[in-house]
Amino acid sequence: MAGSSFGKIFKISTFGESHGKAIGVVIDGCPSGILLNEEIIQYDLDRRRPGQSRIVTQRKEKDQAKILSGVFEGKTLGTPIAILIENEDAKSTDYDHIAKQFRPSHADFTWDVKFGIRDYRGGGRSSARETAARVAAGAVAKQVLAHFGIEILSYVSSIHHLSIEKDERNWTANQVDANIVRCPDAALAQKMEDLIVQTRKDGDSIGGVVTTSINEVPAGWGEPVFDKLSADLGKAILSINACKGFEIGSGFAGTRLKGSEHNDIFTMKDGKVVTRTNFSGGVQGGISNGMEIYFKAAFKPTATLMMDQPSIDEDGNEVVVSGKGRHDPCVLPRAVPIVEAMTALVLADHALIARTNQI
Amino acid sequence: MAGSSFGKIFKISTFGESHGKAIGVVIDGCPSGILLNEEIIQYDLDRRRPGQSRIVTQRKEKDQAKILSGVFEGKTLGTPIAILIENEDAKSTDYDHIAKQFRPSHADFTWDVKFGIRDYRGGGRSSARETAARVAAGAVAKQVLAHFGIEILSYVSSIHHLSIEKDERNWTANQVDANIVRCPDAALAQKMEDLIVQTRKDGDSIGGVVTTSINEVPAGWGEPVFDKLSADLGKAILSINACKGFEIGSGFAGTRLKGSEHNDIFTMKDGKVVTRTNFSGGVQGGISNGMEIYFKAAFKPTATLMMDQPSIDEDGNEVVVSGKGRHDPCVLPRAVPIVEAMTALVLADHALIARTNQI
Amino acid sequence: MAGSSFGKIFKISTFGESHGKAIGVVIDGCPSGILLNEEIIQYDLDRRRPGQSRIVTQRKEKDQAKILSGVFEGKTLGTPIAILIENEDAKSTDYDHIAKQFRPSHADFTWDVKFGIRDYRGGGRSSARETAARVAAGAVAKQVLAHFGIEILSYVSSIHHLSIEKDERNWTANQVDANIVRCPDAALAQKMEDLIVQTRKDGDSIGGVVTTSINEVPAGWGEPVFDKLSADLGKAILSINACKGFEIGSGFAGTRLKGSEHNDIFTMKDGKVVTRTNFSGGVQGGISNGMEIYFKAAFKPTATLMMDQPSIDEDGNEVVVSGKGRHDPCVLPRAVPIVEAMTALVLADHALIARTNQI
Amino acid sequence: MAGSSFGKIFKISTFGESHGKAIGVVIDGCPSGILLNEEIIQYDLDRRRPGQSRIVTQRKEKDQAKILSGVFEGKTLGTPIAILIENEDAKSTDYDHIAKQFRPSHADFTWDVKFGIRDYRGGGRSSARETAARVAAGAVAKQVLAHFGIEILSYVSSIHHLSIEKDERNWTANQVDANIVRCPDAALAQKMEDLIVQTRKDGDSIGGVVTTSINEVPAGWGEPVFDKLSADLGKAILSINACKGFEIGSGFAGTRLKGSEHNDIFTMKDGKVVTRTNFSGGVQGGISNGMEIYFKAAFKPTATLMMDQPSIDEDGNEVVVSGKGRHDPCVLPRAVPIVEAMTALVLADHALIARTNQI
Repeated sequence: MAGSSFGKIFKISTFGESHGKAIGVVIDGCPSGILLNEEIIQYDLDRRRPGQSRIVTQRKEKDQAKILSGVFEGKTLGTPIAILIENEDAKSTDYDHIAKQFRPSHADFTWDVKFGIRDYRGGGRSSARETAARVAAGAVAKQVLAHFGIEILSYVSSIHHLSIEKDERNWTANQVDANIVRCPDAALAQKMEDLIVQTRKDGDSIGGVVTTSINEVPAGWGEPVFDKLSADLGKAILSINACKGFEIGSGFAGTRLKGSEHNDIFTMKDGKVVTRTNFSGGVQGGISNGMEIYFKAAFKPTATLMMDQPSIDEDGNEVVVSGKGRHDPCVLPRAVPIVEAMTALVLADHALIARTNQI
Repeated sequence: MAGSSFGKIFKISTFGESHGKAIGVVIDGCPSGILLNEEIIQYDLDRRRPGQSRIVTQRKEKDQAKILSGVFEGKTLGTPIAILIENEDAKSTDYDHIAKQFRPSHADFTWDVKFGIRDYRGGGRSSARETAARVAAGAVAKQVLAHFGIEILSYVSSIHHLSIEKDERNWTANQVDANIVRCPDAALAQKMEDLIVQTRKDGDSIGGVVTTSINEVPAGWGEPVFDKLSADLGKAILSINACKGFEIGSGFAGTRLKGSEHNDIFTMKDGKVVTRTNFSGGVQGGISNGMEIYFKAAFKPTATLMMDQPSIDEDGNEVVVSGKGRHDPCVLPRAVPIVEAMTALVLADHALIARTNQI
Repeated sequence: MAGSSFGKIFKISTFGESHGKAIGVVIDGCPSGILLNEEIIQYDLDRRRPGQSRIVTQRKEKDQAKILSGVFEGKTLGTPIAILIENEDAKSTDYDHIAKQFRPSHADFTWDVKFGIRDYRGGGRSSARETAARVAAGAVAKQVLAHFGIEILSYVSSIHHLSIEKDERNWTANQVDANIVRCPDAALAQKMEDLIVQTRKDGDSIGGVVTTSINEVPAGWGEPVFDKLSADLGKAILSINACKGFEIGSGFAGTRLKGSEHNDIFTMKDGKVVTRTNFSGGVQGGISNGMEIYFKAAFKPTATLMMDQPSIDEDGNEVVVSGKGRHDPCVLPRAVPIVEAMTALVLADHALIARTNQI
Repeated sequence: MAGSSFGKIFKISTFGESHGKAIGVVIDGCPSGILLNEEIIQYDLDRRRPGQSRIVTQRKEKDQAKILSGVFEGKTLGTPIAILIENEDAKSTDYDHIAKQFRPSHADFTWDVKFGIRDYRGGGRSSARETAARVAAGAVAKQVLAHFGIEILSYVSSIHHLSIEKDERNWTANQVDANIVRCPDAALAQKMEDLIVQTRKDGDSIGGVVTTSINEVPAGWGEPVFDKLSADLGKAILSINACKGFEIGSGFAGTRLKGSEHNDIFTMKDGKVVTRTNFSGGVQGGISNGMEIYFKAAFKPTATLMMDQPSIDEDGNEVVVSGKGRHDPCVLPRAVPIVEAMTALVLADHALIARTNQI
């Protein structure tokens, strides 16, 4: 049951180790009739790709998506869509020195206990390289959502101590992709970039927050009780490497408001039910209410550092883990398309589930 | 697929409307040989029960658990365990005035859109009454965890602006249950109680944060990629009514640390692998590492207020929702056993899943 | 994961031991807006009920269905439907003598190995009493199918050596229920009844075959590859106690035809695609083609005999299992509503799944 | 949810169209520590391969398995195992003439209704070519079963009217693979071969029966109620293309025995619980009892014929489907490894599930 499958109707199954032959994904349950080709998938993969700018890891991977099945004459068949991304720049020798070491705050130790064997090269399957398969699947899910007029906008809203102030989330996709940090506030983005560059020089790393905003989700998506839209989004986002927190709507800050301040009052606008405020974040009782859905995801600083760190090896001996190999001082810019992808997967799944609610 | 099932191997299916005949749960996949009786379940149900103290809702429900199946001579059979809780104090007439109204920040509107029909009495299935079934199931999961020596400690760490400062989470269950707020800091608890009492008088409501700490989880639980322990815990907690945020380990605050400050250094202690710090919150790469697992859950202020609020009805007419019926000014004290239950369900499930990882 | 859940979208979870407090079922995923009440469920339960005629087991159970949740003002809410059937005539003392014995061809031994504990009273959960919960759930599924104009007709087509000859399956429900054997061929039914009566006198048991015919299933239900309609029906039927065989369409006999004899030729009739013959049994490539779906299920002779049989006990000692307690010399008449129920559950599930095939 | 996933813990997800770029499978949930390499997979693939003998389809496919992930230094990692088989001899132009025709007893019509689009080349995903992915996955499952000392023996027991008489199933794998028909009775195999050759000359097709025998399955596998071992095997086998019937143990013939003849009497042999007869087919109450598990699968004659057949096209026009392309006059010899694969998948899954039954 080792956890690499996701979704209930729009189901994905990802595979691949960081330095194996390939990574990829099989999507089972995508409806037929969706426009799809490799360019559509490549667009998002390029946004996640290593080496795309000077502030991310310099591993050279083209991350070229190949559709192996499920598409015929430019449209989905309703059959499984397999997408393959071959690994190219797998410098496995870079990792010999850590074959038996447990890198601090990495998954080396936990995988060793769990499976009794691990592919130590680049972290094997615990590597964030695995998320390329999610992004590929997410690109397909976005095509499903396009039929509902839904677009997902994720962006970097904070890095370390630098945050967008009074964020009203009225940014455009162009503003997000206008800089290599993917923070739509251009002035702040420059400061963030400088901080990342300095952090790389220091051999250190930093974390931050990605904010996501989705408009046009119709009311009625999300299932009661356990499969609430908020809960499924939470699981999806928290399953991304390095994610340690998730809040939707008013989140933790909302715990300091009174009910009389926090309640979202219903009213009619252009013949449609809306709420005057939106502390609920577009989800009430676990079900979308037609308002903007928004949430935040916290990403811890990357565990890989370009400096010596004490640790132990598989035999319990004290060792020094030295900082070699390639290094991503801040994953936030690349986390943006991953958050979008996981969001799209949840929404596409719930779009289909919602069709079964009424007779 | 309407969302009332949870778990992969230790699976539960809950049922029941707030003012229907009964609520309950069926657990399919509990191993045989677990000690179980109605008293064990009742213990946790009593901690969640309405009317247990002057600061919670005064609905009078005994919440008496009846085990219908799956237990024989005091032990689980390995067959489904059905637990029934009959509804008693269902004053349905209290709700006639809101039969067609959409209460602000409640699920009336979203359920109406989703299903085209709803049991408006007390919120029907969207009522937090449903969580009694979770608590009953959680009590069984706790019995599974007892075989591993695992105890779960949840408590109220903040209400509105009142927070435990420098919380080191070294509290006992007795300290938590020593007061009706379930905040282990006795002095702070008194302030919280006063605030809740005042809020009730104002007809208003307040939210807060529940912190959870679990020791003795062995390393190796949690599946890679999507079914990370952190992600499954997140989904479980975020599925609780009124929960809007979840963070594990360093959470959102961790985004302001550098990697060199945040990394948890491995070392040996008494022949066991431990980490010097625990910003990871006991989960690395989605898998438990044997350290304390801890996380926080944010609960928004209750939507039900004892005051007039503007809204609309099913036909789009403007109406005034008046504050009648019973009222829980702050759900936090009763959220504690619910958070524990959801945590236990996730851990019991992963305890069983982990048995299938190696040949 | 102990196997008491069934279905993908229209999901059921059954519970209960033969001599415990109650048996029942929770249905999660039934769409809202379905007409439902206890009478509808009772109708099918009465057809499965013990003691309904002189040829079935004389256990006295009213099998009174109680709907606990999920229905409001006569219609389903879209929330879980819990149905409870209390056990009444549980003469547990009848079973003390077999508490440690393994009855031949019963599940006593296998359950003992599997769970290390078992409720030996009346076979506990391995008892066919469990199927009452399936019948209750099936009655709900039939209400879903009624929206599509689908009716399921099952009947006894053979008992021991007595078979309907040249069965063209053009019987009515009235013909089936016109006699206590539920064989629509009245003359043959009388012979079957005589054989069952004689077999009871002999303390022996006999098996037979149930045939099922379903018209009006629209083309397009059933998923490719693994979740073929034929495969899901097969699993459903083979999961019924005592069922040892399943064949759809031409089945085993079809292996003696040539392709040129067996192929079903497509043609148009009244503007609809039909096939001239129907060796496919209404399912092609695992998907319904709009023609009659028909299949057969083989039920072995009941394992309980009213005669002495050699066996062993839990300690490996040789014992004599004596024939006491109540006895069903032939399960076929009561198997009819059970087969119908499992068929309805599969079809209702696929009716909903099919809504997600195209964008 | 389009049906290409199978299994609960040992889960597979297959993909690929007959004339697309590739077919393959991702296995999620295979335990770590299993010996695995491409040769092991290739062995079974070669037994299923087209063109392997003069009596099967002459499509030229090497069916070369490539392991893309999940294996490191010859052992499984516990991570998803992706296996790729590229398509080579895809003569798509062979199929232009049937692009809009519905071939008799093929899945063209049902897929067209279901998805509104189809890859008509060689049947697309409805082609039996899909089963190569099952065989590859089954080879991995067999490696899991090898740890339990379990081997699966499937063989052709009848073709058209030619059947092994008084089959006691005491054949060896060598006897099965000693001839191209895979019938272990050498004399009968020759007659079968002659019949297949003649049938090919006639442009016609024939069906038959595959029998399977498995020894050494420990008592206790299979879950009660719905996920009975017999039910899961039934679903697995019935999901294979052209399979129309399944019977386990005494099957349909057992319905003509009395309980006193059919009951399997328990006794002790070499300190182990055994039964004197084995009409149960090694499964009682859905759970293995340690005796030989055996079952039969009925395969209808292949739908593709090398002769003209009347039919209709997508617009309802009458057409003549002419017999072109490659042709498998009898799928039975190639069905043998497919039945083994599906059997292995079910058993490997239940081997893991059984670990969760007791605390």
